[in-house]
This record gives sequence, structure tokens and C-alpha cells, in this order.
Amino acid sequence: MRLIAVLVILAVCATRGYGEYKPNWESLDTRPLPSWYDEAKLGIFIHWGVFSVPSFGDGFLAELFWYYWKALANPHAIDFMEKNYPPGFTYPDFAPQFTAEFFDPNKWADMFEASGAKYVVFTSKHGEGYTNWPSATSVNWNSMDVGPKRDIVGDLANAIKNRTSLRFGLYHNLHDFLNPLYLNDKQNNFTTNEFPRMKSMPELYDIVSRYKPDIVWSDGDQGTNSSYWNSAEFVAWLYNESPVKDIVVTNDRWGRDVLCKHGGFLTCDDRYNPHTLQTRKWENALTIDKHSWGYRRNANFNDFMSINELLQQLVTTISCNGNMLMNVGPTKEGTITPIFEERLRQMGEWLNVNGEAVYSSKPWKHQNDQTNKDVWYTMNGKHVYAFSFSWPDSNILELGSPISTSSASVDLVGGASLLTWQSISPGGVKITLPVLNPALTKAKWVYVFRLIGFV
Amino acid sequence: MRLIAVLVILAVCATRGYGEYKPNWESLDTRPLPSWYDEAKLGIFIHWGVFSVPSFGDGFLAELFWYYWKALANPHAIDFMEKNYPPGFTYPDFAPQFTAEFFDPNKWADMFEASGAKYVVFTSKHGEGYTNWPSATSVNWNSMDVGPKRDIVGDLANAIKNRTSLRFGLYHNLHDFLNPLYLNDKQNNFTTNEFPRMKSMPELYDIVSRYKPDIVWSDGDQGTNSSYWNSAEFVAWLYNESPVKDIVVTNDRWGRDVLCKHGGFLTCDDRYNPHTLQTRKWENALTIDKHSWGYRRNANFNDFMSINELLQQLVTTISCNGNMLMNVGPTKEGTITPIFEERLRQMGEWLNVNGEAVYSSKPWKHQNDQTNKDVWYTMNGKHVYAFSFSWPDSNILELGSPISTSSASVDLVGGASLLTWQSISPGGVKITLPVLNPALTKAKWVYVFRLIGFV
Amino acid sequence: MRLIAVLVILAVCATRGYGEYKPNWESLDTRPLPSWYDEAKLGIFIHWGVFSVPSFGDGFLAELFWYYWKALANPHAIDFMEKNYPPGFTYPDFAPQFTAEFFDPNKWADMFEASGAKYVVFTSKHGEGYTNWPSATSVNWNSMDVGPKRDIVGDLANAIKNRTSLRFGLYHNLHDFLNPLYLNDKQNNFTTNEFPRMKSMPELYDIVSRYKPDIVWSDGDQGTNSSYWNSAEFVAWLYNESPVKDIVVTNDRWGRDVLCKHGGFLTCDDRYNPHTLQTRKWENALTIDKHSWGYRRNANFNDFMSINELLQQLVTTISCNGNMLMNVGPTKEGTITPIFEERLRQMGEWLNVNGEAVYSSKPWKHQNDQTNKDVWYTMNGKHVYAFSFSWPDSNILELGSPISTSSASVDLVGGASLLTWQSISPGGVKITLPVLNPALTKAKWVYVFRLIGFV
Amino acid sequence: MRLIAVLVILAVCATRGYGEYKPNWESLDTRPLPSWYDEAKLGIFIHWGVFSVPSFGDGFLAELFWYYWKALANPHAIDFMEKNYPPGFTYPDFAPQFTAEFFDPNKWADMFEASGAKYVVFTSKHGEGYTNWPSATSVNWNSMDVGPKRDIVGDLANAIKNRTSLRFGLYHNLHDFLNPLYLNDKQNNFTTNEFPRMKSMPELYDIVSRYKPDIVWSDGDQGTNSSYWNSAEFVAWLYNESPVKDIVVTNDRWGRDVLCKHGGFLTCDDRYNPHTLQTRKWENALTIDKHSWGYRRNANFNDFMSINELLQQLVTTISCNGNMLMNVGPTKEGTITPIFEERLRQMGEWLNVNGEAVYSSKPWKHQNDQTNKDVWYTMNGKHVYAFSFSWPDSNILELGSPISTSSASVDLVGGASLLTWQSISPGGVKITLPVLNPALTKAKWVYVFRLIGFV
Repeated sequence: MRLIAVLVILAVCATRGYGEYKPNWESLDTRPLPSWYDEAKLGIFIHWGVFSVPSFGDGFLAELFWYYWKALANPHAIDFMEKNYPPGFTYPDFAPQFTAEFFDPNKWADMFEASGAKYVVFTSKHGEGYTNWPSATSVNWNSMDVGPKRDIVGDLANAIKNRTSLRFGLYHNLHDFLNPLYLNDKQNNFTTNEFPRMKSMPELYDIVSRYKPDIVWSDGDQGTNSSYWNSAEFVAWLYNESPVKDIVVTNDRWGRDVLCKHGGFLTCDDRYNPHTLQTRKWENALTIDKHSWGYRRNANFNDFMSINELLQQLVTTISCNGNMLMNVGPTKEGTITPIFEERLRQMGEWLNVNGEAVYSSKPWKHQNDQTNKDVWYTMNGKHVYAFSFSWPDSNILELGSPISTSSASVDLVGGASLLTWQSISPGGVKITLPVLNPALTKAKWVYVFRLIGFV
Repeated sequence: MRLIAVLVILAVCATRGYGEYKPNWESLDTRPLPSWYDEAKLGIFIHWGVFSVPSFGDGFLAELFWYYWKALANPHAIDFMEKNYPPGFTYPDFAPQFTAEFFDPNKWADMFEASGAKYVVFTSKHGEGYTNWPSATSVNWNSMDVGPKRDIVGDLANAIKNRTSLRFGLYHNLHDFLNPLYLNDKQNNFTTNEFPRMKSMPELYDIVSRYKPDIVWSDGDQGTNSSYWNSAEFVAWLYNESPVKDIVVTNDRWGRDVLCKHGGFLTCDDRYNPHTLQTRKWENALTIDKHSWGYRRNANFNDFMSINELLQQLVTTISCNGNMLMNVGPTKEGTITPIFEERLRQMGEWLNVNGEAVYSSKPWKHQNDQTNKDVWYTMNGKHVYAFSFSWPDSNILELGSPISTSSASVDLVGGASLLTWQSISPGGVKITLPVLNPALTKAKWVYVFRLIGFV
Repeated sequence: MRLIAVLVILAVCATRGYGEYKPNWESLDTRPLPSWYDEAKLGIFIHWGVFSVPSFGDGFLAELFWYYWKALANPHAIDFMEKNYPPGFTYPDFAPQFTAEFFDPNKWADMFEASGAKYVVFTSKHGEGYTNWPSATSVNWNSMDVGPKRDIVGDLANAIKNRTSLRFGLYHNLHDFLNPLYLNDKQNNFTTNEFPRMKSMPELYDIVSRYKPDIVWSDGDQGTNSSYWNSAEFVAWLYNESPVKDIVVTNDRWGRDVLCKHGGFLTCDDRYNPHTLQTRKWENALTIDKHSWGYRRNANFNDFMSINELLQQLVTTISCNGNMLMNVGPTKEGTITPIFEERLRQMGEWLNVNGEAVYSSKPWKHQNDQTNKDVWYTMNGKHVYAFSFSWPDSNILELGSPISTSSASVDLVGGASLLTWQSISPGGVKITLPVLNPALTKAKWVYVFRLIGFV
Repeated sequence: MRLIAVLVILAVCATRGYGEYKPNWESLDTRPLPSWYDEAKLGIFIHWGVFSVPSFGDGFLAELFWYYWKALANPHAIDFMEKNYPPGFTYPDFAPQFTAEFFDPNKWADMFEASGAKYVVFTSKHGEGYTNWPSATSVNWNSMDVGPKRDIVGDLANAIKNRTSLRFGLYHNLHDFLNPLYLNDKQNNFTTNEFPRMKSMPELYDIVSRYKPDIVWSDGDQGTNSSYWNSAEFVAWLYNESPVKDIVVTNDRWGRDVLCKHGGFLTCDDRYNPHTLQTRKWENALTIDKHSWGYRRNANFNDFMSINELLQQLVTTISCNGNMLMNVGPTKEGTITPIFEERLRQMGEWLNVNGEAVYSSKPWKHQNDQTNKDVWYTMNGKHVYAFSFSWPDSNILELGSPISTSSASVDLVGGASLLTWQSISPGGVKITLPVLNPALTKAKWVYVFRLIGFV
């Protein structure tokens, strides 16, 4: 039984010395980020839980429905409940409707693979406290006991790990926003920490031990310091002792004192995209439904980011040393709806053509072109890649940053042949664009120009 | 009370002489089709009912779930029920889950308007017998009593009729496939007609009297003759006496002896598209989800027709004297999912540019170009429109059918300027295509060329 | 298929002459009541239907919940719904919860047999219109389609008919109180009769043809005349042609003009008990739960009639030429709760001792004793039976009506030996009562004295 | 917030010395039992929880449904689930149906008061782990979060405490039979005690602190020693420090080493009734439904103990120094069904007449009469009470144990006058019984004779 293992580990940790990394952020920051993560560039984020049952957000995020309804008394949430549910209906009453009857982890994995993403981050538990695996500290409030009646995390982990192109990560929300132990700690100004001791930490150790994730994506410190959570202790265990100690990456959402400063890659904020080069690896977590991470049944077509918008986010992110984590919200039935699938497949279609400019690329010396604000750069090996968000009416693309060398050449990725270009002074290049067959062109949405021999 | 009106009408009809049209198909065929219908070209079809609750089709149409499950013992349907529902769960047990909580008829009407369609045909009742209005002959098996708790037909009729660009039609399925009165008539080889007398006909008269539809879209004769249904009687009433007698159009699905021969416009078959000019007005009813008219929760992205496929259907249809009726299947919650909305808005985007080649157009003397099989025609006033499904690599479009006159000119609809062209012998024209800005072009998917002064 | 039979019968009736009885009440009244009914004395009435789901009455009868809620806007009913159900919940939404999972017709039959009753009358349909058999004119509003998923009437009929001591009858409510066809007829001042034609009459013929009941217990004329219902027509068919024409009995609730005057046995009113001899056979229909015929979950112990109260009703009824029909209301699960079962078994315990004074008895020349108002009489053969509701403190029972003859004797039914008695003048008798062992006596509740040789 | 109090108490207990009683059973046994308990004689036991939803036992106790279904794979339980619930339905799925809409604590309190009982013991939590109060360590598995949506324990405590005749006690089951932490401890041979630390003990302290019960009725040690549970620690806190330290009583179900030996009053076994005098106070916990403590929808009338059987249990119990705890199982709706209410009111009717022989009585020197095995004794002050379960045919009651003194007299409690009696040798008395009016007598079921001046 895995639980035994966890308890043994806990016991061991309580008594032994630490390994290479000490449980403080200075020490933990010395660990190099495993390289696979930077090379991957694009991950898929999945928000799934009991919140996928009401799957309703109206001016608020669907995954926070419970909190907006009960803690904030949001009038849209209250109205929605009054109109559609019996008096006294509680949030846990939604759980039996989290049926997941169409959940097919292999179908999901196929879709993620087709998107060109290289990793998947799945919500093991969100702020509602419901665990998508059979947690011993969340009795009857987990996916085995109520709702899907299966180990969702385990089933998805298996499907993802069977794809060599994909890595598997777990999102974990530290606080359960309405848990009475948490609320009590809060009332005590976090001088007590019954909640982390009884719920968060046992569950974090449990998911790492059980599912061996490549990523531990923490969230939900809710403005408290890492000392309340004992998160440095956990990360030290993760880096020193856990079964994934050599390969795992984690993020920075481990406490108010850690966010955007320490940990693994930095996330700083939702949809974080600084548009300038960052020295430390970071991640832009965004969601295709502009208004929610969890599925919203009431979302309209224009609430979804277009493939152009998504690609512009991806390009600006990777040119500045970030990865993009692109979120989909499955339905309570376990489907990823066709509009999401269309975006995933469009992304894959584009990456299939333009992947060389993305995967394993590095930021170039310039991120945004100095004169053409619609153009961003990466480099890969000796090639510089210019991503253009627009297509000039003149059919002449002017760039201000690249300087040609003697052996320079330019072509359109997905295009057929070398392009005509000329240097301009004081620096830069004018590229004559090709005539595209509008019905057949592989270059679309964001146009990528391969610059060889430019510095 | 409307019922009184219906009964009075029935009584009147039973005793009086007929008007202009006699209750036989020869007489009924003499009525000219009201012109609005031909001018409209595109309608939206909506399949919504209790079948939207299981919303599951796997090798069969979702709206026929009950029939496939119970009458045909389809193994996929049986398996689906066994895995997900309690023993003894019946089809009527689905009805309370037909909640329609997000059903906003004005939002639907906005969407339909945006699609460029000019009429809407809504399922008042499908083969399950459940009526989307409070029918007095379908007690507790209608949308007011179980499920949405509202007069869906009435609410949608109001919203649609408030849009000057849209007309409102009603689909009505003659037989209820598992109704015991129907099954008994069937066992009697349709020598009895208790079912039409007790259910179908009262309901047909009722919907016309209540909702005054512009279209009565009959279906479901199930291979029986119109004499069983007394449908000629009904159509005579519709043409002579009904509140919509001057404006209404109907179709041909009124009996085995009528289909594809008599009635109003001809539908012949689902997805009927003969690809040759038809003298009588016809309609191509197709559905965006290739495999179902009713919503399928288990549909994948690739089950949906692309905008290209839809436009090719539209063009081939109208060039041959047809209208296209394009189906969407709303969810049990009352939403039209984003993938459908995307297709509707793409259609509207295209029609917004190319509408002059569609609305009120007539078939040209040629439908399909004689040499270029990717090109189809319509005409509108003096203009001939050539719709090209492809874009030649050479950027030269060759057409075999149009013959230029002295004042001929050609341009791309949505393009900026006149195009260069030259006649070819023995007939036809070579058009030099413009360079399109791939990021900004309004001409897309199917390219429409306006030919002026061609014969 | 049985339906065919019904339709044939209907067709036949429409064209042929009548048999012995003409379809008018004078003729129908000439039919002698089959003797089994008078001999039976006690029947069990059962009210079961969708109303057994809310099973709530608070100042109103539970089986009329729908009517009180929706037609009368009863505040207790409204409050109950608002507190416990979602907004918009309708009465038909209750049907899926009519689960009947514990319904065991043989167990019921055992219980009824044990009660000493000789017939059972079961609600085939109450005013809610829901049929407890698969009626072809109540599609998806019957026990096969929604709720129990079985032919309740058929299953119960089989179980009852397998007991030689029990006969099987069917209750049928003529009007469906909220049926739109009925409401329309009503609005037309019953000058139309669409509702009887489309629903009531087809269903009445159907249940008689299918289940061959020994009793047709009509109800619910709702103050209209029998001409509206065509009930004389039906009864004539029942007496002349039906499969039960020789054995069936019916009652008087066939129209305002019929009630308490014509038909079979008279019922006049619920709980009808005139306390005086009636020349025509009548029935006292009462219910053990004093406040409802349908089950009430909110009934308290003191809402149930005690065995003493029930026996006093039985005795006063049979002494005046009536039968008693004693009602139980099963739960939605299909159980007859222990408090009902206790009353049934107590009744059987008493009848087991005192049955000779009840079954096949006739009214005596006196019903209530002339001087002792706690004593009532029956006779059976040569024996006169005096039922005493009390036990005098003096242990001397004085009766004013019996006159002794030379061979007179008296004993207590269930007692051990003859009792001492003496005549009193001007008439009557003084009986010295025995000493009973309070722990063991078989005579209890109502004490029955057997008077032999009294006139 | 009460939780703070609990945590403070826990903290205090961890560091401070103990009070009068030490946390070992020898010390705890020295505490005198508060006298109110012995005087009370009769209590009402209530089993209510999620098990009241399936409320099904067939050869097993309904409150153990989950255990029989899942841990023991009982075929009746499996069959019941397969027939009535969807595939994959779990026990927690029952919780939303624990609706309690008719739960009226004052109505219950009225009923308990009317029964003559002096205390009430209510299941705060049974083996299913679901808490009938909002426990912070049973998130979403408690009566506030799922099901009744109210603090059942609190509401009932208030209603009971408002009755001066009633005291309020709480039942608490130590182990949660399917809790993974418990199962893990078990797998570790109870060398770990995560479960008591994380669930049982926090909850026990919590209910005492919140609800200040007069009784803590422990159960469910499941054969483990008290050291696993730390129950001696808890009882020491209960006796020394808790808010009810002066008045509370507890029982003996605190571990295998404690049962029937230590603690407060002894319960030894369910339905424990040794029929001989016990030196230590004990309790006979039994249930009116002979086959279950939790409500069984499938219980028949003959499954319920008769009032005679209940009174015989009460009498044999109190004559031997026991109390009787008589159980009722409410429905999921919150009603106590009429058959239970009848027994409660019958009990109250009898106690209303015979209470002087029960309340505050003491065992007499004889318990069972030496010659008449149908007679049992108590004494109260100077009176000896003989309870006879039968009534001799001879109307002469012979007793072998009482010895008359000079001032001796005998009468029937509830009777009218002194009785004739005579001493018999070598000891005993013959009492001539009165003639009872069978319709009016207040003495019934078990006959109580008041012996004055007997030794």
C-alpha cells in the first residue's frame, strides 16, 4: 500500500539530515532546471474537477464557483443557483454529477500530442479541495468515491507517459478555500498550521510518491508565507529524495515570499507575459477561454482565443525565455469540446510546419524587432527566426534588427524557395515576400522567416 | 383558448367545401411557391428535444437514440445505457434532464442572423413524440410539463419573428416511432389510423394555428402513403384556410406517394444534392455534425464539416435551384456550442462579402463549369457569378463556359479592382488572379468572381 | 395485441344493437347485483400513483397534491415545493421517483388475505391521469414508461386472483383534473367531450378488456352529468358484452345525475355511513389515515384510525346493509407500512374470531339497539349477533331489542361457554358477562354476542 | 470559533498534568456514576445517518449497509444495488438523498417525552464516518455539507435540552470502517494510529466541547485495545476537564481491554440482558426493529417488538440493575414512523400508570420470583413491586418470594382498590386478582402489583 511508503518517508524526513539541497529558498534556488523543460516550450494545462459540473462563470472564473458563490456572495452565482437548483443545494451536491462517462485518457493524449505540446499539467486538486485521486485525507471528496469513480490522475498519468513526446505534470492547490481547518488557521493569523499538516502536505507527498510527476505545479498560497505551508521542506524532499528528484521541475507559487523570486521556473501571475527577456526561466500560463480555466457551459465563440492570438502569445513568450502553458477545460462528461480541439489541432498544424523555430530554441539578442513591432525573434543553432504577425500590403517586409553577413539567406518556413532580400542601413533587411496560394499555403497565421547568416 | 379555435376549424373542415385547392396532390401542386423562399437560399435547421439529453450517437443519429436502443437493440446504445444508467431507466426518464437553463432565444436569433441565413426551421416534435410546445394531446410529454418548463416553440418563434431578416418554420415528424397507437395501426397494416387521428393531425393543426409558421417542414411518413396520414387534407387546409395560407411553404415529406414528387419544395432525401439543375425548387438539408442532427456529446472536431465543405454544399445547391438548410444541434442546456457558432459566423462572414452572388440569385444556364470542375455558377440580374473551390498554382483561372460580350469585365468579389482576363476558344475565359494579402483578404474559402457582360 | 380487441369492440358497439341492458340508468338499474359482493362485507382499497412520491398532505388529501398545488394554489403545497424542490419543478417530474422497488404483489396479497377482506379495489388511474398500466392513450405518463417500469395493475391482478378468498377490482377516475382536453371541455361548459372520447373511455374499455376486474369502481365525474362521459353506454357494455358481464359489480359515481341513485352499489360520498338501513346495497369507503387516501410521509400515529374505530365503522356499516372498503396508501417504494399492516392484521385477528357474524350476514330487523346505543346487530341464518362497543362496569349488558323465544341462548363469540341472561320487559334481555383473562382473551375491541332463539 | 477551543484544549492536554482522574482505567473506574443515570431507567436510542437512505437490511443491520456491501460483498446488498442503482454508484452517492425535510427536533422531543424515557442517545457518527454535525475533519462528509444541510446534532441537542424531563447523549463510533487511514493502521497491525489522531479523537473532543452531552456513548473499537485509540486519555479529559465533567456518564466500549470491565456503565454486548443482578450499573441497548438499528424500508410489521416484549425487556433489565436504551431508526426524510411512535406512546401510557415502580427504583433482594418465573421485582422506598407478565386463569397470582409483615397490603397499580391476599408457607403470597373491565382498564400488558409491608 502506497500510504505506508508515504508515512515511512514522512518519518524518515522528520529524523534525518537533508541531502544536497537545504530546506531554504537560497539553497533550493541553486538547483539547475532540468533542460527538458526549456526545450519543450509548450505545455497543455487542464483544469478539471467538481467545478466542471456547474461549469458556469459570469464575470468570474468557473473553477472558483464555490468561492464566488459562498465566500463572496457573487450575485450572478447566487442567481444561477436559485434559478436552477433546489433550496439548500450545496457545492458538494454537484459531485455526483461529475460523471466523466466519456473520459478517455488516450483520446486526450492523442489530442495533446497533435497540438505539438511537450508536456501536460493536470489539476490533481483545486481550491475546492476535491482530489482527482483517491486521497486518504479527502475521504468521500475525491474522484474514486464520488463522481467519476476512478483514479483520474492515475489513468491520465498512464496515458500521457505512454507517449514519448509528452511529459506529465501535476497541479496542486495548496489551500482549500472553504476548508474549516484552513479557515481556522486563517482566523489565527496563520500562527497555527493544522490545515497544511492535516491536508495539503500529506496530499503533496502522496501525489509525488504515487504518480511520479515531471512537474509539480504549485498554486494557491493565498498570500501566506511559505513558512505556513512548510513548502521549502517539501521542495527539498522533492529535489533530494523524491522518486522524481532528478527530472522534476517545479514553479514559484510556494508562498508570498517565494512567488516570482524563488523555486523553479517563475510564473509570477496568471497570463504572465513581460514582453522583455527574463534571465530566469518563466512560464506564461494562459487559457483558451479568455474568461475561465474551468469549463464554462455559457462560454460563447468569441470568448475563445483565436489561433492568431494564441500564436502571438506563444511567440512573444518564447522569444523572451518563457514557456507557454495553454489551458483547456474539459466538460464534466470528460470531453474536450471541439472548439478546444480545433485550437489544439491548429496549434499542432502550425508547429508541424514551424517547430524548428520553437522547440529547443533560445532567445535571440533581440526579442522584438527594433523597428517592426509586429516581428519577434528566436534562434536555434545558427538560424535566427523572425515571426511576423502581419503581412505588409507592399509585400515587402522590413526588419530593423538583423544584420546580414556574407553568407546570408532568407526563406519562409513552409514556403518553397529562397526569398529576395536586401540590407538596409543603418541596419536591417528588406525581404520581398512570396506570392502564396491562398488555398494551399502551409505558412499561415504567424509567418516565420528563417534567417541564415544574420547576426 | 387556442384549442377551441382548432376544434372549431376541425369541425368546419369536416363539413364545408374546400377553397381554391382541393385535397389531392394534383390540385395542391398547382399552387405557386411563395417567392421569399427561393430568394432566401440558406436556412438554419435546429434539432432539439429529449434526445439532446443522452445526446449520444455512435454509428447512428443521436435524435433516433430511443429507436436504436429499444426498437433496433443497437449494441452501442444498449452498452451506453448499461454503463451509465440504473437498471430499468427508460427514455422518458431523460426528460427531466432536458433543462434548457441557458436557452436564450434572442441569443440564438442573433447567431442565426449573423450566419446570413434567412429562415429557421425548428423541430416542434421529432419521432420521440415529445412536443416542444404544450400540446393537449401529449400530456406530460411536452416541454411545458417536463424538462424546460416553457413553450420552447413559442419563445423561439417570438425571437425569430422579431428579426426582419429571418422567417420561422416548424419541423413536424408525422409518426412517433414507439407510440402504441402508431404501432397498432402499423400492425393493422395501416388500415386503421387511430394514431394520425389522435395525435399527429391534432398537433399539426395546433402548431400552425398557434405559431403561424412560414414553413411547415413535414417528416417521418415512414414509408406509408399520404392517405394514412390524411396529409393532403391538411395541406389543403394550410393553403386555403390557415392563418398562413398566403405565405407558407411546405415540403414533400407527406407520404411515400408524395416524396420527391408533390407538395411544396422537394427534399427527396437527407443531404439531397443532385448536382444538376432541377426544374422544381428543392432543398438540401444537411447537418454540420456529419453524423447526427441532434447534439452528440461524443462528437469530435473532425466530425464537423469545415467551412469549406459547407460552402461547397451551398454553392452546388444554389447553382442547381436548391436551398440549403444547415442543421445545428443545441445542447440539453440550451446552448449552441462554439464549434457550431464558429461555422455560423464563418458562413455569415463569407455571405457578408459574397451575398450578392447568393441571395435572390437564379441558376445560370450552366451550373458546373464545362471544363473546370471546381467552378459553379449562379446569376443575379445581369451578373454571372463563378464560385471557385480552388486557386490555381499558376494564378490563372480558366473557365470553359462563359462567353464574353463586348462590354465584359471580371473582378473578385471582396477584391479591390478589375482583373485582367482574356477569352479563349472555342469558348471560355482565362482570368489572371490578384495577389491577395494572406492576413487581410476578405475573399477566402470559396472565391467568387463577378462576370459582367458574359453570356 | 389487446388494443386491437378494444378497437374492434368499440367499432362493434358503435354499430350494433344492445343486449339485455339498454344504455340508460333505468334499464341498467334492473340488473341484480351479483351476490358475492354483498357476502364479502369488507374490501381493501388501495391508492397508489405518482402522488405517492410527494406523499404529502397538509390539510388536503395527498392524492390531490397536484390539484391543490397548481389549481388551488394551496399555500402549504406551494411552501412544500419551494422548500424542497428546484424552481420550475413540475408534478410530472415526480414520476421517475415512483420507484416501487419493494413492490411485491404477493406480499400485498398475503396481507390483504390476512385482514379478512374479500376483495381489493386498486387505483388504475387517479385524477393525475397517470395510468398504472401501459395505456396507449397515456404515453410516457404510465407505470411502464416512467417510474415503476412495470404493469402494476396486471401484476397486482395476477397476485390477487391467485387467492381464492380475494376478488380484484379497479378504481378509475373519470376526469384528469389538469388535462388540457378536459379543461377545454369544461371551458366549453361540457358541450364538447373531446376528453372522454380521447382519454377516459378508451382507458375504461381497455382496463376491463385487459384485466377482467370483478369491480369497476368509478369516481371523479366532477359534478358533470353522465351524458358528458357516455357512462351509461360503457356500463351497458360492461353488463352486456364485457368479459366480466356476469360477475362484475360497479358503483354509482358515473355522473351527477347518477350518484347515490343509479348504477350498482351506492357510495354517495366518501366515508358514507348513514347509520340507518338502506334498501339498496351501499358501500362505506373510508381510509385508515384519517386525512388522506394516498400515503402521507408526514402522517403521525394519531392520524391513523385505531382498530376500535375501524371495527365500529365496519359494524355500523354492515348492520345497515353496507360493505366497508378500507383504504391503505402504499409508499412510492411499494411497501405498505407497518402501521397499516398492523391494522390489517388486527382486523383479520378479529374477523378470524367473529367472522360468522360478518360474512354473508344480513341486516337484522333492528340495526342499532333500541336502548343501548353502543350495540348494533346483524343476523346470519338463525343467529342474531349483537356487537357491543363497550363493556359495562356492572358486567351486565342490557339490550332493548332482542326478544327471547323458548329455545334462546346467548354466548360470547370467542368465549368459552354459554352466558347467563334474563329477559326484561317490555322487551330485551340482560346478559351477565363473563370474566375475561385480560392476557389471553380472544374477544376484544368489539365484543360480539351470539343470540340464538331471539327474534 | 469552537475549533480554537478544541485545539487549545488539545494543546493543553499535551503538556499539563492530569486532574483527579488519571488516564488509566483503574483510576477512571473510581469515579462514581452520577445518580441521574440510574434513576432514569429508560432512554431512547436513535440511529440516523446516510445509512437511512438505502435503509435496507436483509440478514444484516441496515446501518452497516456499506460494510456488508463493500467489505463483505454480501449478495443481498449487491443484488439490491444492481437492481436499483446505476453502475458505479457509490455509498457516498447516497448522501444527497439524506434530505431530512420533515426533521422537526421538537416533534421528536415531544415523542420521546411522551414515551416516558428520561434520556436520548443520538448517533453523532456511525461507522460510515459521516458526521451529523459540521466536523472540520470530515469535510463534505457531514450533515451540513451534504444531505440535510443542517447541524443535526446541534438542532436535536437544543430541542432535547429544552425538555426538563430529558437528558441528551451522543453516540460516537470510534472507527470508520472503510476509512483508508483506518485501514492502513489496521494493515500495520495498529502499530500506527494515524486514524485516531486525524479523525476519531479530534471529533470526540469536538462534540463534547460543542454540544456538552450528558452521555458519551462510545462504540466501534472493533476489537482493538484502548491504547490504539488513546481512549483513556479522552475519558480522563472528559472526567477532569470537559465542560460536562460533573454530570457526564459514559459506557465501556473504549477498547477490547475495557469492554464489560471498565469505563462508566457496562454494555458488554448489544441487547445485553443477563437476567441476574449485576453489581455495576449496566445498560441493555436494544432496538424495536428486531433486525436493525437503522431504519429499514423493507421491515414488516412482525419485525417490530410488541409492547409486551418491550415491557418484559424493561422489567427484567431494571430488576437486575440495568437501564434500557430503546432504539428507533428515523427515515431519511426525518420522520419517526407511526409504528415506532405507537410503541413509544404505548410505553409512555404504561409508564404513566406504572412509573412509580420504575423511576428511581432499586433492585429488590429478589429479581425473578422464586416460584413464579413470570414475575420480576423492583423496590422503591418501602414498596416492593411485582411485575407479572401473565394473568393466571384461576385469577389467583401466587408469588414465592415476598414475606408479609404485619402491616402488609397489596394492590394493582392502576387498579381501584386493595386486593385480597393470603400468605402461603414456607414463604410467599396468594393474591386474588380483580375483575378488570376489558374496555377500560388502565392496567395492561405487564401487570404491576404494589406490595406494602412485605420483605
